[in-house]
Amino acid sequence: MTVDFVHDVIARKRDGHELDETRVRAFVTGVVDGSVPSYQASALLMAFVLRGCSPAETVSLARAMVDSGKRLDLSVLRRPVLDKHSAGGVGDKVTLVLAPLVAASGALFGKMSGRGLGHSGGTLDKLESIPGFRVQLSQGDFLRQLERIGVAVVSQSERLVPADRLLYALRDVTATVESEGLIAASMMAKKVASGTSAVVLDITVGAGAFMKTMDQARRLAGLCRLIGDDYGLTTRCCYTAMDAPLGRAVGNRLEVEEAWEVLCGGGPPDVCEVTLDLAAEALALSDLGVGLDEGRARAERALASGQAAEWFERWIAVQGGDFKPGEYHRLAADDIVAPASGWVSRVDAGLVGRAAQLAGAGRTRVDDEIDPAAGVLVLRKPGEPVESGEPVLRVCGRRRDLRAAAARVLAGALTVVDEQPPPAAVVLGRD
Amino acid sequence: MTVDFVHDVIARKRDGHELDETRVRAFVTGVVDGSVPSYQASALLMAFVLRGCSPAETVSLARAMVDSGKRLDLSVLRRPVLDKHSAGGVGDKVTLVLAPLVAASGALFGKMSGRGLGHSGGTLDKLESIPGFRVQLSQGDFLRQLERIGVAVVSQSERLVPADRLLYALRDVTATVESEGLIAASMMAKKVASGTSAVVLDITVGAGAFMKTMDQARRLAGLCRLIGDDYGLTTRCCYTAMDAPLGRAVGNRLEVEEAWEVLCGGGPPDVCEVTLDLAAEALALSDLGVGLDEGRARAERALASGQAAEWFERWIAVQGGDFKPGEYHRLAADDIVAPASGWVSRVDAGLVGRAAQLAGAGRTRVDDEIDPAAGVLVLRKPGEPVESGEPVLRVCGRRRDLRAAAARVLAGALTVVDEQPPPAAVVLGRD
Repeated sequence: MTVDFVHDVIARKRDGHELDETRVRAFVTGVVDGSVPSYQASALLMAFVLRGCSPAETVSLARAMVDSGKRLDLSVLRRPVLDKHSAGGVGDKVTLVLAPLVAASGALFGKMSGRGLGHSGGTLDKLESIPGFRVQLSQGDFLRQLERIGVAVVSQSERLVPADRLLYALRDVTATVESEGLIAASMMAKKVASGTSAVVLDITVGAGAFMKTMDQARRLAGLCRLIGDDYGLTTRCCYTAMDAPLGRAVGNRLEVEEAWEVLCGGGPPDVCEVTLDLAAEALALSDLGVGLDEGRARAERALASGQAAEWFERWIAVQGGDFKPGEYHRLAADDIVAPASGWVSRVDAGLVGRAAQLAGAGRTRVDDEIDPAAGVLVLRKPGEPVESGEPVLRVCGRRRDLRAAAARVLAGALTVVDEQPPPAAVVLGRD
Repeated sequence: MTVDFVHDVIARKRDGHELDETRVRAFVTGVVDGSVPSYQASALLMAFVLRGCSPAETVSLARAMVDSGKRLDLSVLRRPVLDKHSAGGVGDKVTLVLAPLVAASGALFGKMSGRGLGHSGGTLDKLESIPGFRVQLSQGDFLRQLERIGVAVVSQSERLVPADRLLYALRDVTATVESEGLIAASMMAKKVASGTSAVVLDITVGAGAFMKTMDQARRLAGLCRLIGDDYGLTTRCCYTAMDAPLGRAVGNRLEVEEAWEVLCGGGPPDVCEVTLDLAAEALALSDLGVGLDEGRARAERALASGQAAEWFERWIAVQGGDFKPGEYHRLAADDIVAPASGWVSRVDAGLVGRAAQLAGAGRTRVDDEIDPAAGVLVLRKPGEPVESGEPVLRVCGRRRDLRAAAARVLAGALTVVDEQPPPAAVVLGRD
């Protein structure tokens, strides 16, 4: 590709024209083979963010990204493999509960997860906070584990969707993540390439999510379904609130502990509600022949009976993990206290995520080491009463200096008001 | 600078917020010291293009760019040094005429020119089509030549405004040139750093210019004057039409020949008109104590008397050039003929510039070699009558294959109509 051709593609998008599939494909191919340098790629990405990415462009992007690498074939399992993907949330440990819950309910849950550079660690980082847990499985081992215990969550092979890895790394540092089309193409190309049969999308909406409004969220859902339809991949969407963190725990090992509480029939109500809703959707997409209501009932029974917790333990053990619940409960921590008595009206998910990252839970640079114990506990959630001076937020982590930096960020994350705020819904709808 | 800080700067601009001087300066400094990688820089540049660059941001950019390198001090000359800058035009050989004309009229004209990667070669490429012409002069030689003959046009020292060189190279390949603020900061930072006392800006407007409308052109002029005022650099603006190429010649040596015709009292009327208008403005800014009318009269006398042409010959000789007019007149060439009889209504400047570049007059890549003889001659300008089959455009150049490629582009550059079009103004106004 010549410099002039790429320049012309960028200029077209800059001027608000729609790019045809040939141009989109040339761009993606060029990013992968190195003929489109990163500075041209990021200029085009910013033009996509500010000019918008049309439905046709989104489908073209997804196709080009799928074709940039290998595609997994899971048909040897002769059963549909379900997957779930979240559009990004702070304290989102849903996969940790949902995966064994779906398997315990009789369906197959297989997930290939990318490793984000994002503000909160990804699912892989959470699983790796369990000593010994292996996220790298061969394709054969992935299939055998799915056959044996119905659940596997592994790191995505480098050979799948290499274009997404390159583009996402670039978007992450150039403030060009926030485009519904780019997000949809990135999410769905990975699902298509990993051979998933059906996927449930958890589309987070609110101050702590990429989608700030329901309109944006619905556009994202529509674009994802369009790509799904293009490949015959059934796609369901749940919209969930992401103003405050989900649950009380933010940080890798802290979230594993909270997931375990939910699996044992306890845990924060918002995490339970989101997980059961997604489980119902997933089971309704499976080959069990159940609808949403029966799917939800089965998931509730699996939680209540202890089966889901057992399945979690089996799953973690099969992937080499040595999980001992509660061993992280006495952590070095600093508290942020309520400035006045009243009700908590706001715990800013974005700032909590940022603070957890600063405390050591996420990476600022690719080579940063993660402190599995680091994170933030939300002791009082929005809607709950507090007394002046009572702890509301707790920063955990091994390094005192990082905890102090996190605490400074958290100081602005909390609002306490005089009157009890109205209750906020967690599940906002489905499509 | 941390990745996060730069990310935050890009995100602010992306979201439509104005960047304060600290952030703008951190960005420019980071581009120069390499701590802001080019992919982050180009994302921010695209955000500037699509979100706009405010007056305050433009001044901040110019300041940071000026401070990125050395600043020349011309005060030893004890006389104001005038400069002229064009916002970019096809067939724009005005500097070649204006420089000796201003000097012959008694004022000092000193120009440090950057070497563009642009579609038509820059002034330096035009001058270098004269065998032996040296564009690299030491600062001392530049000053001594100005003292001796009142005119010098040289390549800009690498130590002046390094930020502009880096940013312009990036903008050129990422389709982020088209921002009034970025253009104003780039133009004016160079003028400030090169120690100019007063500058006349030729702001081109039309299909073949970066400014497509008078509104855009006025905004650009306003931003340039704002930067000029910030540094006490007097700035005057002329608006000139750039729908068709200026004059009849496009291409380095072809334009030198046409400049010579104008200096000898002939040449295309549009080139004469623009040059005399700019000369009047320049002389009115000099220490000669003349107004616009007297300035114009002096310039006209210098052309009519042959003094300007003599000054051109002296200037070229002092910088080592061996100029023999007319020696390029018999060139290998292909003609584009009129498809019908009538009047030429359109000769697209953008396409003619592109064709001249393809024929060998400009660079597509930094290391492309320029064919000094290559270019396009406009045998019939808009408003002139043609017979069907008569040559209208002529592609010149040594390589037959490149001429053929240029001719294909030119086929779309020409419109012939049945009725004589109304005459079009060349000078559109001044500010």
